[in-house]
Amino acid sequence: MDADPPRLYAPPPGFTRLRLTVAWDGRDYAGWQEQRNAVSVQETLQTALHALGGEGALRPVSAGRTDAGVHAEAMPLHWDVPTTFRVPLVQLPRALNAWLPASVSVLSAEVAPAGFHARFSCTERRYVYRLWVAPQRHPLWAGRALHVPGPLDAEAMNRAAQSLIGLHDFAAFATREDRQTVRDLLRLEVQPQGELWDIHVAGESFLRHMVRGLVGTLLLVGQGKLGAAEVEGILASRERARAGANVPPGGLYFAGAEYGVRRVEGRSGNGGEPGTHRGR
Amino acid sequence: MDADPPRLYAPPPGFTRLRLTVAWDGRDYAGWQEQRNAVSVQETLQTALHALGGEGALRPVSAGRTDAGVHAEAMPLHWDVPTTFRVPLVQLPRALNAWLPASVSVLSAEVAPAGFHARFSCTERRYVYRLWVAPQRHPLWAGRALHVPGPLDAEAMNRAAQSLIGLHDFAAFATREDRQTVRDLLRLEVQPQGELWDIHVAGESFLRHMVRGLVGTLLLVGQGKLGAAEVEGILASRERARAGANVPPGGLYFAGAEYGVRRVEGRSGNGGEPGTHRGR
Repeated sequence: MDADPPRLYAPPPGFTRLRLTVAWDGRDYAGWQEQRNAVSVQETLQTALHALGGEGALRPVSAGRTDAGVHAEAMPLHWDVPTTFRVPLVQLPRALNAWLPASVSVLSAEVAPAGFHARFSCTERRYVYRLWVAPQRHPLWAGRALHVPGPLDAEAMNRAAQSLIGLHDFAAFATREDRQTVRDLLRLEVQPQGELWDIHVAGESFLRHMVRGLVGTLLLVGQGKLGAAEVEGILASRERARAGANVPPGGLYFAGAEYGVRRVEGRSGNGGEPGTHRGR
Repeated sequence: MDADPPRLYAPPPGFTRLRLTVAWDGRDYAGWQEQRNAVSVQETLQTALHALGGEGALRPVSAGRTDAGVHAEAMPLHWDVPTTFRVPLVQLPRALNAWLPASVSVLSAEVAPAGFHARFSCTERRYVYRLWVAPQRHPLWAGRALHVPGPLDAEAMNRAAQSLIGLHDFAAFATREDRQTVRDLLRLEVQPQGELWDIHVAGESFLRHMVRGLVGTLLLVGQGKLGAAEVEGILASRERARAGANVPPGGLYFAGAEYGVRRVEGRSGNGGEPGTHRGR
């Protein structure tokens, strides 16, 4: 497999680029990105760093910009802090966590590798969408998994998923997307474990609301409202109205990201197992 | 194995005894039992039943009376409702859940078997205590698992656990307990799964705070502050001050209960695998 030469990124002069991994409970946030009149994860992190003397730091940049209500189990980000910032790296996660609310936590911190950019260097993003498949809702999964009362056909869902994996134009599954709509879907797989079902989704990057549109469409297949074969037609149509509705954000988790060799556009088919996926 | 003849219980005349399974997120409740100036699960259920025309119902009785902050994945209870109560059983879980807050849910409802009492007929209660074993806390486990930053020796914990299984006087692990303190511990087992560790605990019944005292003591063993062999001495001493502190309630889940043949007191040793345990 050929590879593009990776583009190199650098912090502005006078700054050190850190790489952090952060997790949060999406129920408390209006998403990653700072915005007026709503609490974002980005702003919450900034406030904690200021409390530690990091007022001069730039805004942190994450691998993915998640929506309100979406959770993160392990989100990589980079953060350019003034070279004068004094908190030792080995103490930084604990120091930040002492200031952060219970709903967000820094899992690790290190100096970023040379040329690193949390968003532009990212070669794979992994999500999990969680379903609670049972007649009644479960309070320990409220806001954390979508309750699906009826039975679901996991095999049919996985058959439909197979036809979506690979390099395709995913316009039929995106919402209000201005960019070009071709993406390389590396993994889309339904894994039932009793009443809790994990839908694993991986790709280099995703269109706006694409993961939630894909899951909403698989749900229709699982409920027998859509044939697995019809999903190919929906993909080919590029018409958003034909695919399933976006499932709500509470079941969605940003599960992890990779920073490996950037894949060449034009490769098609399933890239195989995209590494280790966290089961929760 | 011999068995006591099971004692039979009955609802008062004019009432039908229902058996329900209920789950809740303990963070929202001051425990199971109704009390002044605090929201209990019992009272929350009563309010929902009243909304459905069940004003004449008696208070529901649960298999275990859990403390504030303790979660329930599947708690059996019985509920004596007037024979005139009109909501069909098959619709009752959904009807109650429409009135209940997101933090509590009725998973199933049926007519109780003849002679059934949720508390007195119960032959086995199962708990899981959850640990998040990692350098930093995780927001998706806040109030749901105890964060243990340091490394833990699971093997040493399981060796110590073995010496506690069976019929013993557990006075050293109880808090403010007025009853006799001999209990039959059927299971005590640490199961690490990555950073999330489940400690499975099962027995016919438990002393006050006994599960949390047992886990607190195993933690000291896992941290190397207590030898596995010393735990036997603590058990024999019957002195509460020598055992580990009670771990906080947020990591504790009532995981399920059995209503089988009541075991004869006097049997000793491990009763073997006490059935299927929910992994989450």
